[in-house]
Amino acid sequence: MAGSPLLDDLRAALGDEAVLTDPDLLRLHRRDEADLCAAGTPLVVVRPRDTAQVVAVVRAAARHGVPVVPQGARTGLAGAANAVDGAVVVSTVAMTAIREIDPVARIAVVQPGVVNATLARAVREQGLYYPPDPGSWESSTIGGNVSTNAGGMCCVKYGVTTEYVLGLEVVLASGEVLRTGRRTAKGVAGYDLTRLFVGAEGTLGVITEVTVALRPAPEESLTMVAVFGSTGGAGTAVAGIAAQGLTPSLLELLDRTHLLAIEAYRPMGLRTDAQALLLAAADTGPRAADDLARIAEVCTAAGAQEVYAATDAVEAAALLQARRLAHPAMEKFAVDTYPGGNGGLIIDDVAVPRGALATLLDGVARIATECGVPIGVVGHAGDGNLHPNIVVDRADPASLERGRRAFDEIIRLGLELGGTCTGEHGVGLLKRDWLAREIGPVGVRVHQAIKAALDPAGLFNPGKVL
Amino acid sequence: MAGSPLLDDLRAALGDEAVLTDPDLLRLHRRDEADLCAAGTPLVVVRPRDTAQVVAVVRAAARHGVPVVPQGARTGLAGAANAVDGAVVVSTVAMTAIREIDPVARIAVVQPGVVNATLARAVREQGLYYPPDPGSWESSTIGGNVSTNAGGMCCVKYGVTTEYVLGLEVVLASGEVLRTGRRTAKGVAGYDLTRLFVGAEGTLGVITEVTVALRPAPEESLTMVAVFGSTGGAGTAVAGIAAQGLTPSLLELLDRTHLLAIEAYRPMGLRTDAQALLLAAADTGPRAADDLARIAEVCTAAGAQEVYAATDAVEAAALLQARRLAHPAMEKFAVDTYPGGNGGLIIDDVAVPRGALATLLDGVARIATECGVPIGVVGHAGDGNLHPNIVVDRADPASLERGRRAFDEIIRLGLELGGTCTGEHGVGLLKRDWLAREIGPVGVRVHQAIKAALDPAGLFNPGKVL
Repeated sequence: MAGSPLLDDLRAALGDEAVLTDPDLLRLHRRDEADLCAAGTPLVVVRPRDTAQVVAVVRAAARHGVPVVPQGARTGLAGAANAVDGAVVVSTVAMTAIREIDPVARIAVVQPGVVNATLARAVREQGLYYPPDPGSWESSTIGGNVSTNAGGMCCVKYGVTTEYVLGLEVVLASGEVLRTGRRTAKGVAGYDLTRLFVGAEGTLGVITEVTVALRPAPEESLTMVAVFGSTGGAGTAVAGIAAQGLTPSLLELLDRTHLLAIEAYRPMGLRTDAQALLLAAADTGPRAADDLARIAEVCTAAGAQEVYAATDAVEAAALLQARRLAHPAMEKFAVDTYPGGNGGLIIDDVAVPRGALATLLDGVARIATECGVPIGVVGHAGDGNLHPNIVVDRADPASLERGRRAFDEIIRLGLELGGTCTGEHGVGLLKRDWLAREIGPVGVRVHQAIKAALDPAGLFNPGKVL
Repeated sequence: MAGSPLLDDLRAALGDEAVLTDPDLLRLHRRDEADLCAAGTPLVVVRPRDTAQVVAVVRAAARHGVPVVPQGARTGLAGAANAVDGAVVVSTVAMTAIREIDPVARIAVVQPGVVNATLARAVREQGLYYPPDPGSWESSTIGGNVSTNAGGMCCVKYGVTTEYVLGLEVVLASGEVLRTGRRTAKGVAGYDLTRLFVGAEGTLGVITEVTVALRPAPEESLTMVAVFGSTGGAGTAVAGIAAQGLTPSLLELLDRTHLLAIEAYRPMGLRTDAQALLLAAADTGPRAADDLARIAEVCTAAGAQEVYAATDAVEAAALLQARRLAHPAMEKFAVDTYPGGNGGLIIDDVAVPRGALATLLDGVARIATECGVPIGVVGHAGDGNLHPNIVVDRADPASLERGRRAFDEIIRLGLELGGTCTGEHGVGLLKRDWLAREIGPVGVRVHQAIKAALDPAGLFNPGKVL
């Protein structure tokens, strides 16, 4: 393998140190953080530093008929970054330049390997704000965020990644370099190719540069908590908050399973007797206290047992930290639930219209009972976007099967309620069947036609999405 | 012609009254409001009432090999809605149902023929806000707005049409009905087909239903005016406002030519001795007065001769009204400029990064002198989006030629400054060459590939965009 003509081509173009064939490294690059997904072992992992090197890689792979799988930080949750056997994995981790931050145009231009938090902090130093804040923001890359159209906690007020992508540079399957979009606030020159690549999960090209829109830094936010005796009550409150015309800058839900898991993971004095907790914030400056008071009123009317505001920024940060710990805490909880360290999570991700949130929450509880698996629910309640975390014993096929059934039942319910099979995690390998169900045969044909138009040989990320 | 098999098919599907062949009506439907664009005479204009009828029309046209040109209210400014000879024009004016307004999900579902203002008012009655407000909002349709990705005065704070399109129903060239997108706040299921159709100017399908996102109604805004002795000063102020992290809800520019034209059209006491006027508004509630004061400060620092706030809502509305009169006033001005009523406007539309606005404004003045044509500039300054209005004598080929040259020079300058050849009016017939220059050969090939994938026979709106 060390002497394969493809590897020779790659080494000639990128230099030996950027062409990795060490078996341990190949193993490391097999998969992202999604469960239930197949993964292959790549032939090679390359770490190009610039667009020209990506072009060389894509051309070489195309010439040798070897598929290309783009990878960022592999924090995805749908298997979109999983390798396929014998592929060239294009890792963008060495493409970390922030080329430009322009406070007047309110844009930044970055290479795809820049970590979300790195960009967020760099623009914050100039009084600007890059809102998209996926849970993985400390490690995930802008390229990965763009490819998956990542969400986060800010979305309820500030929208998802695609709202912030103005333009892209993409290496196509032909090896040509496409520039899409613009640096201007507005522009309607031609088809919106930018947003075609956003969320395409690496199936249409390799993103080599991203121009993002920025906002002025928001004001300090105030934070509050509402404690509910039922998850349905929390869902009702979310609908009421929207009906009142309120737009919190954050509106997150943690159910009892998560509260218990977080307290076990890192005791913070959370109300573990609650069935659900809503965490809300407002960054509306002089109006924030009023807005929170109105949110509190809606929560009380929806049956909240207790409502309290964070007394200071330290307490507010602790509450946010609790929310951010939900994922690792639940992983720990899953490990502890089953003997032998084989407990794990199947992470679901559905979004429904806000008015259907209470019904979805009740439905998830019913599905947990029916399928006989513990399910904890956490999520971006303000967007109607929930992550039911299904706790399974990986060593027990029956448990996995029950978990898989619950996973499917939750999505089925989400679709019945007018929702989508994925609010922010994407399709990848995990939800290809559900995507097909959601968009129907015409939608699938249009997807296939576009894929074939841009990547006729199926070079990029084969088997993903479609 | 009355007995053509295609017309028989159309009448059978839609009924006689929805199949128009009256020559006067055909003439009326030849073109939108763009100048300098070719237009053909359609074979027939059809007015379907529902999706099934659109399907029947598209299938019939495809069967007979006759092109289909979708039309809304024909208020477009790039010729995208212009008929081609012998085409079936599909007018959406009879598809005017507002199917649903949901204040909790914050969405509305409408047929494409709903007029922008009708939707805006209907949602406002429920405390909601549909921001996109193109100049034509009292007459243009949501379908047309979506097809052209229409902008307006709100965009500086609230973004353009595409930010508000969650999902579409589209009749494809195959006659199949595609549903894209979702009703949820978030969703990443598959490629973003919704935004591929937004701004595609009717070249990829006929939009038959639109699901739009709504916002809570904004607060009353406060309005101010800054009077400048140079257009460049106004441009500098716009950059300064952005650099200060301010986001006005409106930031419009009127140059002296427009001020004179508006005063002549409807005397309002505008400062016609000014070289430029910036109109700004803030809808930030308790903070609005402060925000305007900061904007005023920036304007003064950039050389404003006078800055004054509207004392009440009546005065604010009058200022806005002056801005809204810019287009008809300039048309009148053009007519009056040349003998015989042959004066007219070539309306340009470029957007540049905000920091380049002052340079663009100075450049337009230079181009006016060099080309020997009067050019008035109005526009959405806060977005870096200007409409240089070139005053020509339609009866004088030399004047038209000078106007056309100025039009091109302005776009060339816009592109040199890192801008786009169209900020909001679109490509249509008017800017196909400039689009090709802006996006380059790779961009053109990708456009063609997508067009071919979705509409292999070239049924929809031939000759537009590409």
